[in-house]
Amino acid sequence: MEYTKPLAKLIECFQKLPSIGPKTAQRLALHLIKMPEYEVEKFAQTMLEAKNTISYCEICFNMTSQSPCEICSNALRDKNTICVVSETKDLIAIEKTNEYKGVYHVLQGLISPIEGIGPDDIRVRELLNRVHENNIKEVILALNPSVEGEATSLYLCKLLKPFEIKVSRIAFGLPLGSELEYADEMTLVKALEGRQEL
Amino acid sequence: MEYTKPLAKLIECFQKLPSIGPKTAQRLALHLIKMPEYEVEKFAQTMLEAKNTISYCEICFNMTSQSPCEICSNALRDKNTICVVSETKDLIAIEKTNEYKGVYHVLQGLISPIEGIGPDDIRVRELLNRVHENNIKEVILALNPSVEGEATSLYLCKLLKPFEIKVSRIAFGLPLGSELEYADEMTLVKALEGRQEL
Repeated sequence: MEYTKPLAKLIECFQKLPSIGPKTAQRLALHLIKMPEYEVEKFAQTMLEAKNTISYCEICFNMTSQSPCEICSNALRDKNTICVVSETKDLIAIEKTNEYKGVYHVLQGLISPIEGIGPDDIRVRELLNRVHENNIKEVILALNPSVEGEATSLYLCKLLKPFEIKVSRIAFGLPLGSELEYADEMTLVKALEGRQEL
Repeated sequence: MEYTKPLAKLIECFQKLPSIGPKTAQRLALHLIKMPEYEVEKFAQTMLEAKNTISYCEICFNMTSQSPCEICSNALRDKNTICVVSETKDLIAIEKTNEYKGVYHVLQGLISPIEGIGPDDIRVRELLNRVHENNIKEVILALNPSVEGEATSLYLCKLLKPFEIKVSRIAFGLPLGSELEYADEMTLVKALEGRQEL
């Protein structure tokens, strides 16, 4: 079975995207071909425009179409609190809560000896410079509860201690709406460790 | 929380594709922005090229970049047997088996009174013309085992009977590798009805 060539090429493009397997790629490609021509043109243009205009904020390394980014250049944000995240998608998740009013630092990765990613491969130096040069009061580590997230958090904590600022880490425990009975053991361990006095 | 504008537009484009929700659209868009520039350009070009060069085969209404399509113009295919499918994706699924050597007819839909789709909205007339004008020996109905698929199959069967050709329908029953215990009732009913003598 061979797809007609332009279709095969389009399926291949879709398949390079994360979480898109051959079956989904085929469905998306067939759908795209059925879409009105102007919509496909708009899609292609939007893609190129996004790629060409979006880069990284010179201060926090968030994805942005202006630098400094909208968050760093917002006068209402508390510039003395930095929330450290691994990727832009984590920043977006925190922004969606509408609760956090400080600024961010996007590491663009996590330390992972297995994958050969060391502190120099991610934006650690830039974070230390920010803490060194500005009047930072608190650094909140909001990294994933994974091996890499733990390693990076511990490493950053060690480096930040000498600055004599508050270094905190987001809490791990039972997610709201979940049931204790079904929580995995590591989550329960974290929930017990992180218990708070009432 | 607001995405930077070109990102928001890109997420919106992805979300128009089938089975892509807001979360997946965000992930795909963020990934695309991290891809090398030439790859994004290639993707956009491939998209436009596929849209502009792919149309429908004048004989069988398969998606193709040449008309008649590769199957209809293949001298090795048996032109006396037509397999009727609803969409190009079903044709692709059958082609992947490498078993069927006849030609196809893509209806481009199914009869659905609820959605207001009648026989004139799909390629029924063209199928009858093909059967009328060519020396067709068998028409195989390979439509989904859904209400619409049943209705369309029965309708086509009635129209094709007067031609005195063989009209058959693909078998419905237990899928290979499945377990009888877990089959739904309708599948079991179909499997019993379609039992074959040994």
